[in-house]
Amino acid sequence: MISIDRPTADLGDVRVTNRAAVLRHVRRHAPCSRADVAAHTGLNKATVSSLVAELIEHGLLRETGLTENRVGRPATMLVLDGSRYVGLGLRVGADELVAVAAGLGGDPVLTWRRAFPAATAGPEETVKALAALTRRAVNRIGADRTVLGLTVAVPGLVDPDGDVPAAPALGWRGVPLAASVRRALRDRDFPVAVDTEANLAVLAERRHGPYAATTDLVHLTGGPAIGAGLISGGRLLRGGRGFAGDVGHLPLAADGPACDCGRRGCLTALLGVDAVIRRLLPGAGPVTDHLPEVERIQVLARAGDEPVRTGLTEIGRLLGQATSVLSGLLDPEVVVVGGHLAALAPWLLPAAHAELAARTPVPPGVRLEASTLGSAAGALGGATAALATVEAGRLPAG
Amino acid sequence: MISIDRPTADLGDVRVTNRAAVLRHVRRHAPCSRADVAAHTGLNKATVSSLVAELIEHGLLRETGLTENRVGRPATMLVLDGSRYVGLGLRVGADELVAVAAGLGGDPVLTWRRAFPAATAGPEETVKALAALTRRAVNRIGADRTVLGLTVAVPGLVDPDGDVPAAPALGWRGVPLAASVRRALRDRDFPVAVDTEANLAVLAERRHGPYAATTDLVHLTGGPAIGAGLISGGRLLRGGRGFAGDVGHLPLAADGPACDCGRRGCLTALLGVDAVIRRLLPGAGPVTDHLPEVERIQVLARAGDEPVRTGLTEIGRLLGQATSVLSGLLDPEVVVVGGHLAALAPWLLPAAHAELAARTPVPPGVRLEASTLGSAAGALGGATAALATVEAGRLPAG
Repeated sequence: MISIDRPTADLGDVRVTNRAAVLRHVRRHAPCSRADVAAHTGLNKATVSSLVAELIEHGLLRETGLTENRVGRPATMLVLDGSRYVGLGLRVGADELVAVAAGLGGDPVLTWRRAFPAATAGPEETVKALAALTRRAVNRIGADRTVLGLTVAVPGLVDPDGDVPAAPALGWRGVPLAASVRRALRDRDFPVAVDTEANLAVLAERRHGPYAATTDLVHLTGGPAIGAGLISGGRLLRGGRGFAGDVGHLPLAADGPACDCGRRGCLTALLGVDAVIRRLLPGAGPVTDHLPEVERIQVLARAGDEPVRTGLTEIGRLLGQATSVLSGLLDPEVVVVGGHLAALAPWLLPAAHAELAARTPVPPGVRLEASTLGSAAGALGGATAALATVEAGRLPAG
Repeated sequence: MISIDRPTADLGDVRVTNRAAVLRHVRRHAPCSRADVAAHTGLNKATVSSLVAELIEHGLLRETGLTENRVGRPATMLVLDGSRYVGLGLRVGADELVAVAAGLGGDPVLTWRRAFPAATAGPEETVKALAALTRRAVNRIGADRTVLGLTVAVPGLVDPDGDVPAAPALGWRGVPLAASVRRALRDRDFPVAVDTEANLAVLAERRHGPYAATTDLVHLTGGPAIGAGLISGGRLLRGGRGFAGDVGHLPLAADGPACDCGRRGCLTALLGVDAVIRRLLPGAGPVTDHLPEVERIQVLARAGDEPVRTGLTEIGRLLGQATSVLSGLLDPEVVVVGGHLAALAPWLLPAAHAELAARTPVPPGVRLEASTLGSAAGALGGATAALATVEAGRLPAG
């Protein structure tokens, strides 16, 4: 095994690390007793009791009063407490904004969708709309809950400062999004961050989808531009500049349709929602609202429409090909597809699985599945990311 | 930021973590004083003195007696001590075995190459040769130095048990390599591990090449099959089953030459050393000893041979294309090429850089460079990996 560069540690770090371990155990195994936590984390019971007391006092855990059905003294059971703190996540889609507020356990306190054409409205109007939506959400959340942070999910490249150098799905370039949203919300005292939709969606998959125990997981976003959120060895991959997961220009077919980048047959030019609609509904023309068109494709596919079925099979094969590249490079246990790729999964996945099996060297590898989180995945991930410092064992200031 | 799942910590862990931090600082900044270590690690001086005393006692650090040229009391300087412990690395190439023994600082105590046709000899004979080479190396290293471990580098897939499910460059399938080498060396008391050549080469690049400060780094191996060692966020990526970095079947040209996998135009079928020789030296026939053929290509390229130059430019373009895929997905700061790709770098890289620039979206990205470690990279990485527990702050038992 190769050693990891870690900073030095001190006693404060130990307590933070152990607090995070307790929260993590309760997140995965709630309801559970203090004795369970001690047994599974390897911490001694006195340490667990002290940490749990502190976490209860700060409103991060609560006792349910339930007891386990077992021999011996009944134990008080613990669950995450979602009542005092929430994280807020906003997703900027090509044709909608999504807001999700969620507590530590991921239970959505609020899920809002609002049709909004971010591509035609431009960054300035989008920032205004995001700020307005945030204010309304904070008001709805109410004064008895504290918002610990806001993370905005954007389909594109995001640098460590929260600037968006390029978001082709929105037609944006060089947008200082985090700074602009912070300015628009300067009267609020919670931190504002921006991350890619793909990064936040894969975080949501791991936290709130069926993949909590999966250390190697990829989420491929749907939408006008395909992006990948990569978790490897339990950790999100960001890359040197923060641009990891930019798979939209993976070359799949040299003779494929033209891509915005000037070449042909890139992943996005073949599997992006506009490309899929153009191919399967040739008369549709330019589309600003994708959902009704995707639903038309579903209706036609269900009805057995031959050209649509054939087209979906071919698109599925390309998805299998792209998945085999990801699989070879990163060896994930699961690749989860979102957006329109999830909506069309019943017709895409059989062909994708066949292609993947044909391309996978021995031994057999990755699973390819549809996301169950819907178009809120990025926003839910944003809400979760906004709680990251608490999840990492730091106590809220409030 | 997204939190990392870490196990719980205790006071013993703190000392181990801090010991590793001291060793890391000295590795990067030697010669340096105790005060330097304290200033840069954030540890207090008493802790540093205690840790340094312990590390000197165990033969991991030594004092050089040099003093820094500065105001105030002259300080005793520290360097890594490579005199008492070495790690041993063996690399199984298609046509040679390489052995490297190195101390903590990476100074090679021994570098041996031995022509050996692992592909035709088969796994059983190769294990015998590896054991014999190990014994000779241990004898040469001598009794005053302790071998802390052996890591064998293999061009292929390696699972966490050290089994090799497939190594196409050697024609191997399902070889329980680590267990076989352990059995052959059962009279020796050091641990034996197996890892991919690519993983060990990228470790060597980061430790002993010019990339110590680079947290996002890829090494593309040369040889009959191309593999990738991936360091992202300072950590080696292994994937769910340990097979990350299997890039050999990245599809680059649908109409390219046939690949062993049954498809056409895979990375290995275009850029592997056999493919390159076949393309540039059409009369060469099947090759078992690659080095002389690669040298012939160098001679022809230097002499300005037109078909060879044109072929190298085309191969360079494909290398640029492969690098752009890696770059999009992982956003590394540097991609380093090894083996024959390094040997032919003067002619490959200009075309590769041009292709990469044409394919890289704003903002400009990755650097593509030739390795300076030569064919010993995997073995040097193996020697380094064999010292990993010490580097991670655990004291040797001896």
